Amino acid sequence: MKKIGVFTSGGDAPGMNACIRAVVRTAIYNNVEVAGIIHGYNGMISGNIIPMQSRSVSNIIQRGGTILKTSRSTEFLTHEGRKKAYDNLVKHQIEGIICLGGNGTFTGAKVFHEEFGIPSIGAPCTIDNDLYGTDFTIGFDTAINTAVDAIDKIRDTAESHDRVFFIEVMGRHAGFIALASGTAGGAEVILVPDVKDDWQKMLNYFSGENKSKKAFSIVVVAEGDEEGGAYKIVEKLKTQIPDFDTRVTILGHVQRGGSPTAYDRVIASRLGNAAVEALLKGETNKMVGLLNNKSHLTTYDDAINKTKPLNSELLRLIDVFNV
Amino acid sequence: MKKIGVFTSGGDAPGMNACIRAVVRTAIYNNVEVAGIIHGYNGMISGNIIPMQSRSVSNIIQRGGTILKTSRSTEFLTHEGRKKAYDNLVKHQIEGIICLGGNGTFTGAKVFHEEFGIPSIGAPCTIDNDLYGTDFTIGFDTAINTAVDAIDKIRDTAESHDRVFFIEVMGRHAGFIALASGTAGGAEVILVPDVKDDWQKMLNYFSGENKSKKAFSIVVVAEGDEEGGAYKIVEKLKTQIPDFDTRVTILGHVQRGGSPTAYDRVIASRLGNAAVEALLKGETNKMVGLLNNKSHLTTYDDAINKTKPLNSELLRLIDVFNV
Amino acid sequence: MKKIGVFTSGGDAPGMNACIRAVVRTAIYNNVEVAGIIHGYNGMISGNIIPMQSRSVSNIIQRGGTILKTSRSTEFLTHEGRKKAYDNLVKHQIEGIICLGGNGTFTGAKVFHEEFGIPSIGAPCTIDNDLYGTDFTIGFDTAINTAVDAIDKIRDTAESHDRVFFIEVMGRHAGFIALASGTAGGAEVILVPDVKDDWQKMLNYFSGENKSKKAFSIVVVAEGDEEGGAYKIVEKLKTQIPDFDTRVTILGHVQRGGSPTAYDRVIASRLGNAAVEALLKGETNKMVGLLNNKSHLTTYDDAINKTKPLNSELLRLIDVFNV
Amino acid sequence: MKKIGVFTSGGDAPGMNACIRAVVRTAIYNNVEVAGIIHGYNGMISGNIIPMQSRSVSNIIQRGGTILKTSRSTEFLTHEGRKKAYDNLVKHQIEGIICLGGNGTFTGAKVFHEEFGIPSIGAPCTIDNDLYGTDFTIGFDTAINTAVDAIDKIRDTAESHDRVFFIEVMGRHAGFIALASGTAGGAEVILVPDVKDDWQKMLNYFSGENKSKKAFSIVVVAEGDEEGGAYKIVEKLKTQIPDFDTRVTILGHVQRGGSPTAYDRVIASRLGNAAVEALLKGETNKMVGLLNNKSHLTTYDDAINKTKPLNSELLRLIDVFNV
Repeated sequence: MKKIGVFTSGGDAPGMNACIRAVVRTAIYNNVEVAGIIHGYNGMISGNIIPMQSRSVSNIIQRGGTILKTSRSTEFLTHEGRKKAYDNLVKHQIEGIICLGGNGTFTGAKVFHEEFGIPSIGAPCTIDNDLYGTDFTIGFDTAINTAVDAIDKIRDTAESHDRVFFIEVMGRHAGFIALASGTAGGAEVILVPDVKDDWQKMLNYFSGENKSKKAFSIVVVAEGDEEGGAYKIVEKLKTQIPDFDTRVTILGHVQRGGSPTAYDRVIASRLGNAAVEALLKGETNKMVGLLNNKSHLTTYDDAINKTKPLNSELLRLIDVFNV
Repeated sequence: MKKIGVFTSGGDAPGMNACIRAVVRTAIYNNVEVAGIIHGYNGMISGNIIPMQSRSVSNIIQRGGTILKTSRSTEFLTHEGRKKAYDNLVKHQIEGIICLGGNGTFTGAKVFHEEFGIPSIGAPCTIDNDLYGTDFTIGFDTAINTAVDAIDKIRDTAESHDRVFFIEVMGRHAGFIALASGTAGGAEVILVPDVKDDWQKMLNYFSGENKSKKAFSIVVVAEGDEEGGAYKIVEKLKTQIPDFDTRVTILGHVQRGGSPTAYDRVIASRLGNAAVEALLKGETNKMVGLLNNKSHLTTYDDAINKTKPLNSELLRLIDVFNV
Repeated sequence: MKKIGVFTSGGDAPGMNACIRAVVRTAIYNNVEVAGIIHGYNGMISGNIIPMQSRSVSNIIQRGGTILKTSRSTEFLTHEGRKKAYDNLVKHQIEGIICLGGNGTFTGAKVFHEEFGIPSIGAPCTIDNDLYGTDFTIGFDTAINTAVDAIDKIRDTAESHDRVFFIEVMGRHAGFIALASGTAGGAEVILVPDVKDDWQKMLNYFSGENKSKKAFSIVVVAEGDEEGGAYKIVEKLKTQIPDFDTRVTILGHVQRGGSPTAYDRVIASRLGNAAVEALLKGETNKMVGLLNNKSHLTTYDDAINKTKPLNSELLRLIDVFNV
Repeated sequence: MKKIGVFTSGGDAPGMNACIRAVVRTAIYNNVEVAGIIHGYNGMISGNIIPMQSRSVSNIIQRGGTILKTSRSTEFLTHEGRKKAYDNLVKHQIEGIICLGGNGTFTGAKVFHEEFGIPSIGAPCTIDNDLYGTDFTIGFDTAINTAVDAIDKIRDTAESHDRVFFIEVMGRHAGFIALASGTAGGAEVILVPDVKDDWQKMLNYFSGENKSKKAFSIVVVAEGDEEGGAYKIVEKLKTQIPDFDTRVTILGHVQRGGSPTAYDRVIASRLGNAAVEALLKGETNKMVGLLNNKSHLTTYDDAINKTKPLNSELLRLIDVFNV
């Protein structure tokens, strides 16, 4: 392989730039040319492709977002779109691709390979941490620190006013962010889509004898909880505890941005490096992840379809600490 | 005066603890005893009053919230409530009070003095910065840094996706937070209740030839803008630009909390000190503020009723920078 | 076991408070009383022991340092000292102890058990991450983020002036902090005590053809590097490259403090919980650690005597990225 | 004036980029071309001059350092150097210059104007805040927040160990950083070059009856204190109190870097704007500053030669709070 391409796709995640840097420099270290594809699959289709040198990724390791820009491409869902993308890769003599993203990104790369034979390796970039085949996704550590920082700030007000706050964090399908940030933020209740009896627990907490135990409380809710987002949950709670007084904060997009944490930069550096090395060794259709602190390849199929459970040791701590 | 009381009231603001520390130590320095009244006027009514020593305020200068807790008291709005409060002050031999808060707090203190003769000096603690008689309120600098930090994070995503984001910051009656954080965050548009033609400007920005100028944009909206909050504004904008695509984030309560900035700690220290010195000199019914970097007394009446305008030099920069 | 004691010893580490909270609440959850021993072994000797309830550890999860205070005790190195400590534990009916610290702390606990039969479980609290038996020590993640934050700031100046900076981070015996923070900070050279040929590499980097490659460079040095600290290294370098121009910053004690990161709070919560559960199950003379994201017991002997190597995948990246 | 140049010179300061952005966009807003001169006076001499558009300064408001790079130029101290610089300005049709820096920068600009008639306006960029004619210099607010953040971290350790820490902050000629960060950091003692009896106060604090008052203490020292830096001071202190036990941390270059605070971005925006407007109005040899929150012009002579005193209200608080 003489030339590869790299791009970011789907939602942006802190650490993408550190990963791009690792990809570019590892390619150059292996005497392989590398091109940056702008705006993900859309740029592949439109031919928005630029050469990258070692200098191109200088001083970006600490930056949030992605210098290659990202998007969700509807055109790439069509065969025509993918054909255009293929033609552009051929034109630029790109023989393999490194894709930074999540489920949708890897699905696209898999179909693309089936149709046009372009090999690819994926690096897991999503704040949600809900990808099978890696203990941590790139961006997760930054996102939970951002969430914890917000919880800390809100706890100041909660404590000063003796008030209950509901804080909604990201996590449409899984409660990784809610569980980690809730634990680290000292939340009294954590509601995640992965656990079905947490609603009843919360009801007990607020209506039972516990009610008077603590003067203030923090409830962390994953946006994808089966009961709905924070506003819905509070509404429902008020039908059962009419005088329930609380405030709601939706953290929203701040969780996606910001300078990546040390750990996110470290794993982004390792996974970007490992992705290129795997691609150059002839691997394809696999996501590189970290399992037990070692890099590891998982097929796209497994990464996309298998479910990574929440850490059970962590999950039970909420009850223990609520004494 | 041999003994004074100190309390926090209304919404909490970062720097309240630094101000409490300054009040307590200045009192002790002047050989005056000092008591802490818990939960604002409510604690005065219920007699929740504790003695404070130099050690009581050790290592709190960096903490958000208020160790004296705060509340909004409906009972203090009644004469009966105030009578109870007065009786408790007499019982604790408290001869004067330092109140940390905003408009509502000072109004209560004024009425209380009229009825029961308890002198008081107020220190301006509110993140909104909308008090006449001081260039900066305690908490404002921290709040704008929190807002700017969030804007920076969201800009990462906005730039990566070439997307427009609307960010709603606090400020029910005035646009201080929006103007300062929008300027510092490099926002393309800032909507504040103090300016009436900003809607039309925004419409021009997004619909006219400017539309294609920048790939992404940040709009900062004060919650109290005359057009409504960010969601309402976006809804209205879509009626005029049907294909307008954007995301909305409401920063919410994170703006109230957090460790105070250096500047908020400095002015909280100065104003807490100046408040006690003014009270001991026989002043009453006045708020101590900073004008031109010197401490200054303003009557409660002026502080409550007069309007502090936004900085005109700053206000015109938005247009200038939008080239 | 009806009552246990908990204390912190040796250098403080961010996350100690989160760990104390977990210990206290897990004990209470298991209907076991818990006492806090102030100032480590010194407090055990002097009888500075206080009862702890759930409320005692409220709102401390986010605080740096240790509410139980810490110290290095010379008296506990003597049999007489340990006898006094034992008598105090008996007096307070403390049947087992949870010790938060590192090598020295565990050595003391081991000898104490041999002599007086007091069982103990240790939790690894040190920013250095150099304990065998756990992938991460409590405090390490915060320390590397603090170091990376400083490196980021210094890189601003290095880039603006086209200058070389040497930054010395903690790590007397091992290069964990230097390797992680150097990687995350995008350092061009990292000098650690664990690698013996890094000096020559650096010499090549600055004297060879690489010299002109980058306009500015960051060198991260572990304080315990075999060539000495940063100042010594720069001195020696100047004897070989006479016109070498650089600046040195010693990060120092800032690395020990600060609010713990999300990850440090999470593992402190897990390890504090696991430590108490192990003690109650009859375990003793073991350190609880995290291996492959699961809690795991290692004997004090192994934790103290065995060496944890630096991550080899990470170690080779410096060369790769230096293209 | 149809074209102006902008450059940064001397030590870098957070907010320089925000100021460059304001200069560039204000020039464009006024239909004036603007060129960036790289590496300060050195770039003027070597002809390292680039055109700047609105886009050139996009998304830099939050970045530390300076995108135009900076240096201290010895060649510009010679007439020959300045002649080359003048020739390059003529070649690029640059009719006036905006210089971002401090004393040395303005001195250079003044001599340059005397010899070659190139008008200039300066913007005060230095973390030290020691320029007459402005209440705040660009970079000062960020620097004190960085220092306070470090003091907060060290206080965690100081409190946990009951130990005294000496922290040396920047400030070769004046104690602005030490006074503000020491006050905000709750320091027990602050040593500044501007006050001559602070040594004796410190001696009293540590040797007298105060000794036992507080278990731990923070001393903040300005690097330019008349007694020397922190290490020298501790050495001298030990000759008078032989068993004095303490730790020293030199904050160093971290104080120069980092993303500027909200306030630094706001004043950088205002002063960059005001500098261009003044130049276009025909002003020269003046520094634009903020006095009482309004922009104000001061002659280079006054800015360089007159001394700005420390705030007296703030200076006396140290004693008051040390009760």
